[in-house]
Amino acid sequence: MTASVKPGNGVLERLAHSRELVEPSMRAAVERLDDHSRLVASYHLGWCDEHGNPTRASGGKAIRSGLALMVADAVAGRPEPGIPGGVAVELVHNFSLIHDDLMDRDATRRHRRTVWAIWGDPTAVLVGDALASLADEVLSETDSPYAHRAGHALAVATRELIRGQVLDVAFEQRDDVTLAECLDMAAGKTSSLLGLAAQLGAILGGADETACEAFRSYGWELGLAFQLVDDLLGIWGTPESTGKPVFSDLLAHKKTMPVVWSLEHGGADGRELAEWLARTDPPTDTDLQHAAGLVERAGGRDWAVTEANERVRRAGEALDAAFDGGGLSPTHREQFDELAQFVVERQL
Amino acid sequence: MTASVKPGNGVLERLAHSRELVEPSMRAAVERLDDHSRLVASYHLGWCDEHGNPTRASGGKAIRSGLALMVADAVAGRPEPGIPGGVAVELVHNFSLIHDDLMDRDATRRHRRTVWAIWGDPTAVLVGDALASLADEVLSETDSPYAHRAGHALAVATRELIRGQVLDVAFEQRDDVTLAECLDMAAGKTSSLLGLAAQLGAILGGADETACEAFRSYGWELGLAFQLVDDLLGIWGTPESTGKPVFSDLLAHKKTMPVVWSLEHGGADGRELAEWLARTDPPTDTDLQHAAGLVERAGGRDWAVTEANERVRRAGEALDAAFDGGGLSPTHREQFDELAQFVVERQL
Repeated sequence: MTASVKPGNGVLERLAHSRELVEPSMRAAVERLDDHSRLVASYHLGWCDEHGNPTRASGGKAIRSGLALMVADAVAGRPEPGIPGGVAVELVHNFSLIHDDLMDRDATRRHRRTVWAIWGDPTAVLVGDALASLADEVLSETDSPYAHRAGHALAVATRELIRGQVLDVAFEQRDDVTLAECLDMAAGKTSSLLGLAAQLGAILGGADETACEAFRSYGWELGLAFQLVDDLLGIWGTPESTGKPVFSDLLAHKKTMPVVWSLEHGGADGRELAEWLARTDPPTDTDLQHAAGLVERAGGRDWAVTEANERVRRAGEALDAAFDGGGLSPTHREQFDELAQFVVERQL
Repeated sequence: MTASVKPGNGVLERLAHSRELVEPSMRAAVERLDDHSRLVASYHLGWCDEHGNPTRASGGKAIRSGLALMVADAVAGRPEPGIPGGVAVELVHNFSLIHDDLMDRDATRRHRRTVWAIWGDPTAVLVGDALASLADEVLSETDSPYAHRAGHALAVATRELIRGQVLDVAFEQRDDVTLAECLDMAAGKTSSLLGLAAQLGAILGGADETACEAFRSYGWELGLAFQLVDDLLGIWGTPESTGKPVFSDLLAHKKTMPVVWSLEHGGADGRELAEWLARTDPPTDTDLQHAAGLVERAGGRDWAVTEANERVRRAGEALDAAFDGGGLSPTHREQFDELAQFVVERQL
């Protein structure tokens, strides 16, 4: 939390309030699934344990649905029109998490076992499929006159999301991934849905094309900032905040953006980092600390921090350009800046 | 082919003509995918080999898109309005085939290696996801005033399709699946999309609600007939026609509808069949022939043939009930009967 976020009007409070607004519709959507898929989806969303007993596990901050509602509020004067958009984007996000965990063979998420790890591969495939389809169903059932445009935006963003994951899988087989390719992948994996969230809030709130596109750009840039911070947390985040071991991305030899920047621009430290990454023996804690130090000395850490802040600046610029002649209240404008600040400052 | 199908006006000719009408739009849709997914989807659809060299492999009869176009023609006087519906339903069908092959670990389909067998699990997951999302995108981009209703029908049918596959996966773990459950699963796996195909043709053709629902029922019953015949082919089909070994479903100990009927109603033969299915030693050809004989003597084969014909009768009835006062030309009515006959008589 930054000093500029006022108590009672802060980002976390607003996100929590959005979650409360969205959750009944999320639950109603999941309720439509067959018994097995409903249990698995409810578990994944943090509503119950694997036997169906209600829990209060964290389903995440739901920043995507929060953004959809914030934009709807800014456009329509109330957040409610954004609810179906918020539900749809959270469903698509969780579809991709369930499929990604399966493909990456990640057995833990948010300190809990992942879907495939508990129920096996077919269940992970099918429940992911079901959530993706449910997103379309929810959006197509709103009585909003903008539902059709919203459905199209959802489909395009989902294609972009999948493209990002295709690149991610392909990059794992390659040693020569460029920074430009990494940024492209991050845009696909993260910007697509944050852009969609803001766009859906704008569309369903009744904004014109220019405003919808401005909000989409805001979300898009925010998504890149988000992913850059995620990459920083993947190296320097604490296990408490990330739910993963220290240096987890280095341990997995993941070519995240700070790493790839260091390889491209890091001189001698970058070359040493490349040699380190080529090693196949299991690294000790000292090895990992050494590698993290190489990324830091190569300048990858500073670059990622600067780039994340640059993306936040561009996000604000997208709103400034669209609302130069007004149309966005100072209070709402401030909320979007606060959300962007929150994204770059979270857990670091 | 039955004697009633006239040369030049037959089912196969009409399906081939529909495929020609739909293919450019299918190719344009797949063209939007990233390079890797486009190659994989094109391979799966029979357009190229695994290296991208054009081939003329069979992509199947495309009965689903054919049905969408037939219905559009019956409703609107020309098949073209049904094209986006045909594309969408084929995309969803192929999404489910790619995911099903992965979950079932089937390494061959239509005499060619399956997607996961060539490119691995993550690619099969992602390309399936991409085709499902593409279906929404295609439908949401038509300038039809009915696109929104079509999108909703697509989402609901996709949920039903996934539910069918969830049941399929669950039933493999169980020894006590009832015939009613089997029929429910078949409805989900097959009727959902044949019902959707006909419904989309009707919606996009501009039919009223009653007609849309009648066509959906026609497709739904046709789907059950289709699956019953598939189950018969899974036991008695020739390798040439099915692309699978003889008795393949028995070899896999699959509890298909003729088998489950025999277990429930087959008396002594049914009990012997249950004992046979409980055996875990690899069956010889003689064993398989014996098991097929048990299903036959138990009455499962006759039941499935009768039930398939009953479903064809109900399919026709759905149309009769809706168009009692006219609205469907005798020529179109005959075409729907011919298609239904074709489904039950194919390859047997």
